[in-house]
Amino acid sequence: MKPTVAIIGIGLIGGSLGQALRRSKRYRVLGIARRPSTLRDAKHLGAIDAGSTNLTDVYQADIIVIATPVDSMVPIIQQIRPFLKSRAIVTDAGSVKGVLDQQIRGVRFVGAHPLAGSHKTGVKSAHPDLFRGATCVLVPQDDSALKAVRDMWKAAGARTLEMSARAHDEAVALTSHLPHLLAHALVHVAARRPDQKVLKSLMAGSFRDVTRVASSDPEQWVPIFQANLKNLRRGIRLFQKELNRLNTELAKPSLRASLKKSQLYRQPLFNVI
Amino acid sequence: MKPTVAIIGIGLIGGSLGQALRRSKRYRVLGIARRPSTLRDAKHLGAIDAGSTNLTDVYQADIIVIATPVDSMVPIIQQIRPFLKSRAIVTDAGSVKGVLDQQIRGVRFVGAHPLAGSHKTGVKSAHPDLFRGATCVLVPQDDSALKAVRDMWKAAGARTLEMSARAHDEAVALTSHLPHLLAHALVHVAARRPDQKVLKSLMAGSFRDVTRVASSDPEQWVPIFQANLKNLRRGIRLFQKELNRLNTELAKPSLRASLKKSQLYRQPLFNVI
Repeated sequence: MKPTVAIIGIGLIGGSLGQALRRSKRYRVLGIARRPSTLRDAKHLGAIDAGSTNLTDVYQADIIVIATPVDSMVPIIQQIRPFLKSRAIVTDAGSVKGVLDQQIRGVRFVGAHPLAGSHKTGVKSAHPDLFRGATCVLVPQDDSALKAVRDMWKAAGARTLEMSARAHDEAVALTSHLPHLLAHALVHVAARRPDQKVLKSLMAGSFRDVTRVASSDPEQWVPIFQANLKNLRRGIRLFQKELNRLNTELAKPSLRASLKKSQLYRQPLFNVI
Repeated sequence: MKPTVAIIGIGLIGGSLGQALRRSKRYRVLGIARRPSTLRDAKHLGAIDAGSTNLTDVYQADIIVIATPVDSMVPIIQQIRPFLKSRAIVTDAGSVKGVLDQQIRGVRFVGAHPLAGSHKTGVKSAHPDLFRGATCVLVPQDDSALKAVRDMWKAAGARTLEMSARAHDEAVALTSHLPHLLAHALVHVAARRPDQKVLKSLMAGSFRDVTRVASSDPEQWVPIFQANLKNLRRGIRLFQKELNRLNTELAKPSLRASLKKSQLYRQPLFNVI
């Protein structure tokens, strides 16, 4: 019999995972969401086999994936714990790993973070290929649980990478959380200018790309920033130092070498730019 | 007889303009470049009707477009001035307008800035549709010359927008030059970290987009930053203020409203995100 994966929170990530797992034909997917309309959409979009608005239905599941905003995860795990099967594995899809790693006790837990997403949210933006070729970080705690979660993400198309919660959180503060905050800061600079018409007519590719992630949902990002506050603030300090250095170099001959260095570091990083 | 447009500097911008003007069948395009190989590529790619490595050949042209890095423009205009036809119009395609506006005397000059481009450079990246739907800013000085330059950019597919050099330079400092510098600063933060392997494995969409323009050519951007230094430094100060404000808000309830404000400002800005 296929293992049952219960996905709590059927948004972009939960919905896409459900679609990918159902397509693999190796899992039964139970969707758990607060609103019946979400479950209807998820069913219609092929993201779940069955739906429930009741957290106690986790009793059916072999693997429980919590795909809610990061600040809801610990309370949800506390709520579902009494209803879990004895060998059930709890995992998540959150962008910060240290919080869960420290607070989860008494369940077989494997922290996970699929590096995929979009500024779009909701099950209607879900896509079964969202995780294809994406990295999913796993924080190993329990070997047999780790294998089950790794197999699930591989079935969804991701490649998995194991590391400590601390190494993960320090790195994503710089590669994800800081870029998001910089995008917001640049939008605020533009939004406060008096000459909006001229300014908007002169926004081209660089402004579009640097600010794209400022379109992301604050309901999702406020909890992420706050859960990784210390690392993010360290990232802000490092960034301010680099910006001040470049500011000083603007009128100096060394600017060219400095920009050349970042150009050469950046160019080969992504296959598709 | 068709007017002749001489394009000095056949890179991405000059080459794309040549292709677009030739496609319109309303102009003869003379390409002027330092290297014969550039002219051969440009001819092969349909960007020019004829080519020359000699600046004195501007004597053939009704409109001369200088599409070189911004620090070469004033010296080139001084060199070509003795060879211009009596009613010839000189224009450019540079990202900073004040420098030329102040320094060009004794020629019929219209400053222009097509807001199109790429981190890719060179005539081999040229495309006749590069300016389709893009805005081209024109700095009006001479009414009849303005009309000729406006017609040319419209023939290339751009929509034109007139404003003062000062208004242009203040705005692009925030919408283009500052985003470029921020991208470089974020790349420098990442490049200095010791744990490169972990860091690179965790770079996803936000880092990719925020840093994309750090791949741009420093030979092009050093002169732009330096020609718009005062406005760019003002932009850096405004940015630092916003980043500091967000940093303070990170641990406060007001963060949500602040991110919501930038989300709502950013979301409708571009048709294609």
